[in-house]
Amino acid sequence: MLPRSRAARRVLQPVNIALQQKCASSTATTARPKVIFSGIQPTGVPHLGNYLGALRQWTRLQDEAADDTTLIYSLVDLHAITIRQDPNQLRQWKKESLAMLLAIGLDPKRSTIFHQSDVPAHAELMWILSCQASTGYLGRMTQWKDKTSNEKDGSEKLKLGLFSYPVLQAADILVHKTTHVPVGHDQAQHLEFAREVANGFNHVFGQGKEVLVAPETLISPARRVMSLTDPTAKMSKSHPNPKSRILLTDSEDIIKSKLKGAVTDSLDGISYDPEMRPGVSNLIDLLYHSSAEDGYESQEALAKDLEGVSLRALKEKTAEAVDMQVRPIRERYSEIVENRAIMEAAAAEGAEKATKSGAATLKKVKRAVGLS
Amino acid sequence: MLPRSRAARRVLQPVNIALQQKCASSTATTARPKVIFSGIQPTGVPHLGNYLGALRQWTRLQDEAADDTTLIYSLVDLHAITIRQDPNQLRQWKKESLAMLLAIGLDPKRSTIFHQSDVPAHAELMWILSCQASTGYLGRMTQWKDKTSNEKDGSEKLKLGLFSYPVLQAADILVHKTTHVPVGHDQAQHLEFAREVANGFNHVFGQGKEVLVAPETLISPARRVMSLTDPTAKMSKSHPNPKSRILLTDSEDIIKSKLKGAVTDSLDGISYDPEMRPGVSNLIDLLYHSSAEDGYESQEALAKDLEGVSLRALKEKTAEAVDMQVRPIRERYSEIVENRAIMEAAAAEGAEKATKSGAATLKKVKRAVGLS
Repeated sequence: MLPRSRAARRVLQPVNIALQQKCASSTATTARPKVIFSGIQPTGVPHLGNYLGALRQWTRLQDEAADDTTLIYSLVDLHAITIRQDPNQLRQWKKESLAMLLAIGLDPKRSTIFHQSDVPAHAELMWILSCQASTGYLGRMTQWKDKTSNEKDGSEKLKLGLFSYPVLQAADILVHKTTHVPVGHDQAQHLEFAREVANGFNHVFGQGKEVLVAPETLISPARRVMSLTDPTAKMSKSHPNPKSRILLTDSEDIIKSKLKGAVTDSLDGISYDPEMRPGVSNLIDLLYHSSAEDGYESQEALAKDLEGVSLRALKEKTAEAVDMQVRPIRERYSEIVENRAIMEAAAAEGAEKATKSGAATLKKVKRAVGLS
Repeated sequence: MLPRSRAARRVLQPVNIALQQKCASSTATTARPKVIFSGIQPTGVPHLGNYLGALRQWTRLQDEAADDTTLIYSLVDLHAITIRQDPNQLRQWKKESLAMLLAIGLDPKRSTIFHQSDVPAHAELMWILSCQASTGYLGRMTQWKDKTSNEKDGSEKLKLGLFSYPVLQAADILVHKTTHVPVGHDQAQHLEFAREVANGFNHVFGQGKEVLVAPETLISPARRVMSLTDPTAKMSKSHPNPKSRILLTDSEDIIKSKLKGAVTDSLDGISYDPEMRPGVSNLIDLLYHSSAEDGYESQEALAKDLEGVSLRALKEKTAEAVDMQVRPIRERYSEIVENRAIMEAAAAEGAEKATKSGAATLKKVKRAVGLS
């Protein structure tokens, strides 16, 4: 595996998504049907942090959506190439990521699931918006500043794609007339940028009409899953130790073994205290979230019930719950990932729907700027 | 009309194109069929400087091309929007520019004539190349440095499109596997950039194969047409005085009147000396180039023959020759510009051919980087 830079992780980071009922209450400003867009980088089989942090919410948003809500989920492969990728690995990761979106329960008939690079309108709108976005604004984006300050000679060798990708991100969102975007806190700045781009464009070219839709954010309470080997850091695909994370393809035995080896502490009993007992608290979090969150009011309540239990028993209980949750995903995944017919049909259906959606917006945009 | 900035003029500037026979002799390195690509900004009806400097050569390249040479001419409307455009005017200019390409004799069956924004592969390849092009290199491009030094607060407010357009230009060329690009001297740096992008891409992703073709330049001796009211400056669409230029749609009377008012000098007789007698020499240039260059070996020879002639007679003679040359273009233009059937068929044919050409390259590129 290639080393993963911050850039590679940016879209992969677990983004926290408000559930349908939450966003319904927070955004009563428009009566139009919702369009929810979210993207994830195709970095292969997701881990439990990706799943609990973002992907599970994607399926919930789908399953709880009103009939007139459009759900659009993109594997943003054009973002993946802002850092150097091995072509064979990227191809493999794209396949695995798509298979996993299907395996977790996203339905290509109900949701639009597509590879970004299959839909030309993303890059086309990106260029048009490039002519509106100021270089000064982009240069002040936190992530760019981080990158340039990490380089010995500043931005000199950094690629244009690393500088301009927020404009592509804005295009990703705007090209589908997205009304709601689930974002993590570290993405809030980019969504604000997309809003400004949309409003700026409408101001200049709209002639009083709304050509682009400024999307609203969906931010839900953070649901961070920590590394099993270093519970003060987030669970991450880039950690060198594969035991630090549970993949959605891990077998029951591997899940048990990884959880058995999870770093905890040597204090007596079980209690929930992420600050003082990060390892134990991470296990409680995993158990709590994997038990479908229905048994207990909070992690504290769950921990109280487990007070007398041994750490070993907690690990076993957690492994069982995690396996219960992951098993159907793992099984479905292994059924489909090498089934070309299913995979190609899903990709084609997503590409077709997203192309249609993107083309409709692009047509309006081109008309507005005078390109057609 | 909007004020025209340097940026807007960059592709419009008369580029000088070597004739077919010239490029044949200068580029005997490859045996593959030639693909010639050139672009012009859609800024409406061209003037005589555009015509003699570039467009006339486009038709000559077409008419003299070997059967297996592909000729691709693009109205680069995506470049036009790097500066603020009035949408209605841009739409009108696109129409006028296309009509004029047909009127000067470009044959949509023989050549591929298309609006850049009709072909998604340009923007798509541009993004992929953005992930290869370093910001440092782009920041050192002469035209960007000129722009930033003109601004009070540097690059702060300048749009991303003004910074990144050389990458789009590279994509324009590379997406059609162009082997030869006619360029003016002021464009040589951008073509060199395109060559480096192609070679860099092949180095990283080619695995020994040539995915992108590094194009060669065609530079011919400059054929500059100067302003009629200020013969030390180039004839330009942006000059506030319309009498400074002859448009290809100007009637015989207008041509006569503009040439009658052309600034010359009060020296005796006729002589060719662009340095000392720019106005008179510009008239001789116009006469020389408009007489199809077949009567005389050089402007000096022509001037020698005109020694005893009055300035007024020179102006009349030049007006006649210019009108002779422009008349069939003007007539053809007025026949077709409002003929929707002809215009739409030509645009559609060009878009289809260019889309096919672009898609073929993009498919290879996507495969090489792992996007497909």
